[in-house]
Amino acid sequence: MSKPSTQVIAIGNAIVDVMAPCEDALIERLGLVRGGMTLIDAQRAHELYDAMGPAREISGGSAANTLAGLAALGSTCAFIGQVADDQLGEVFAHDIRAGGISFATPARAGDPPTARCLIFVTPDGQRTMSTFLGASQFLPPAALDEAAIADAEVLYLEGYLWDPEEPRAAMRRAIAAARGAGRKVAFTLSDAFVIDRHGDDFRAMIAAGEIDILFANHIELAALTGHDDFHAGIDALKDKVPMLVVTRSEQGAVAAAQGALHEVPAEPVAQVVDTTGAGDLFAAGFLHGHVSGYPVAECLKLGAICAAEIISHYGARPEADLKALVKARFS
Amino acid sequence: MSKPSTQVIAIGNAIVDVMAPCEDALIERLGLVRGGMTLIDAQRAHELYDAMGPAREISGGSAANTLAGLAALGSTCAFIGQVADDQLGEVFAHDIRAGGISFATPARAGDPPTARCLIFVTPDGQRTMSTFLGASQFLPPAALDEAAIADAEVLYLEGYLWDPEEPRAAMRRAIAAARGAGRKVAFTLSDAFVIDRHGDDFRAMIAAGEIDILFANHIELAALTGHDDFHAGIDALKDKVPMLVVTRSEQGAVAAAQGALHEVPAEPVAQVVDTTGAGDLFAAGFLHGHVSGYPVAECLKLGAICAAEIISHYGARPEADLKALVKARFS
Repeated sequence: MSKPSTQVIAIGNAIVDVMAPCEDALIERLGLVRGGMTLIDAQRAHELYDAMGPAREISGGSAANTLAGLAALGSTCAFIGQVADDQLGEVFAHDIRAGGISFATPARAGDPPTARCLIFVTPDGQRTMSTFLGASQFLPPAALDEAAIADAEVLYLEGYLWDPEEPRAAMRRAIAAARGAGRKVAFTLSDAFVIDRHGDDFRAMIAAGEIDILFANHIELAALTGHDDFHAGIDALKDKVPMLVVTRSEQGAVAAAQGALHEVPAEPVAQVVDTTGAGDLFAAGFLHGHVSGYPVAECLKLGAICAAEIISHYGARPEADLKALVKARFS
Repeated sequence: MSKPSTQVIAIGNAIVDVMAPCEDALIERLGLVRGGMTLIDAQRAHELYDAMGPAREISGGSAANTLAGLAALGSTCAFIGQVADDQLGEVFAHDIRAGGISFATPARAGDPPTARCLIFVTPDGQRTMSTFLGASQFLPPAALDEAAIADAEVLYLEGYLWDPEEPRAAMRRAIAAARGAGRKVAFTLSDAFVIDRHGDDFRAMIAAGEIDILFANHIELAALTGHDDFHAGIDALKDKVPMLVVTRSEQGAVAAAQGALHEVPAEPVAQVVDTTGAGDLFAAGFLHGHVSGYPVAECLKLGAICAAEIISHYGARPEADLKALVKARFS
């Protein structure tokens, strides 16, 4: 097995976030599931956009956000995801490449347009997401660069991408390619509703030993294991994956590896502005530590630092210099 | 003369800002004029975008920013400007309408695309702008709603729009329509380089009494009057327009009206993040006071409060609740 030239390659939805603050009453009036992610069609996207206040556009997508954090910390990264040949596709591609991440998936011509996620942010900083998957759901298995996957230390996959059929097939092929080359597979469960739809697949993959590093939050852990109690959930899962990482919002995070449990408190934040990307950036910090060979406790700390940065401003891409932030907190 | 149903109608460039932080060295390496606004073609726009870091997109356009502030403060507003029938055009139209501003100019089919302004923000918060005018420069005089202009208390125009030929003709017609209906014309000089190109036009309009309220910053005042000394510039211009409003960054602002001079200091700001839109939002606060019938000193104070809000975050559209901010500062 040769030394990999990329540290983390990810497959994910290629999404531009459209975000605006809103009052709690609007979430209710629009019939949205507070704090959740709902897939929507073009008509519903128009309805929701019409109801949204003045917004800003910032590149998003769960795995892409994680890579943006990883690259900012100094990891070498590559992304695979499908944009359309349109202005939002150019925005997404620009932002990911400008972050120093390799991105070679060709844009897809014609309809549907590039995916967008309409994010309503309530005064408590909670985000409620409605995703129009657009071109993103047509990532063809043929677009996979299997040589690039085999040449990366970790393959990182987002559960969100398990919904659409073509990307699901692509991810299964990617897992086989990574495992065939002796690489690690990291998987984030993304959302409790995704687990409602695809939990059987995820449990089967875990049972088959296809996942080396599993990321979840406490709600997803409960959805996957059936245990509402946090520690019962950890106990049910911890021996089934080599590395289990579970975040629990302001209560910090836990990692279980080789029979040992590690905990980290949440980093203090002056003001929670927008929680979009908190889990994505926690994963970024953790994975950066992991591929750098740091002890698990330090990986957790890195995750907490990155998550704290992202929730202190709008958008799921880092604004502060993460490297400098980490250096300051570890000195 | 009937009571106008709109307080401020503006004609301006319909632009989406694409903004990213950058180091000072990049400004130099790209050959940009620090703090200025340069018009660029599509090829240069590609070059500059390629050199830009991960960015965010926020609706902009000088006069449109001013209206966003005015509407947030409670003034009734309408906007006239040209977008293309594309994704960035949809973004611009959504944001202006979601702010409560009437916007009825039909999108323009085909090339060129909607205007964008590439904004590099240096660590001191200074913005350096490169504008690809795209569809914005094709605002046809026929798109003017002269009845709407005649029905607005103030017609607000941006000097930036004097560069392209069709909008210039449209603005001249708009001025005639407003004056014919006995309305006021407000004009912002926008940029010293615009004055280099069109100073003779601006001076002729002032001499002809076509401008009732003139907005400038201290650099534009010098460019228009030929006086580098601030007070000499004010003296040279103050009797030629009924209301002269000149901002001078951290030194606050001055208004000259009916032989009297009024001053306001700049509002304190915890951290200057991005000065994009400072002048636009100063004009918003001032005009809101003006159409509300406030004394000049209070109009200046409103301007200073709005300018301070806008420079405390990225983007030229207000994020805080301006009404609440003003109420808190005046109580």
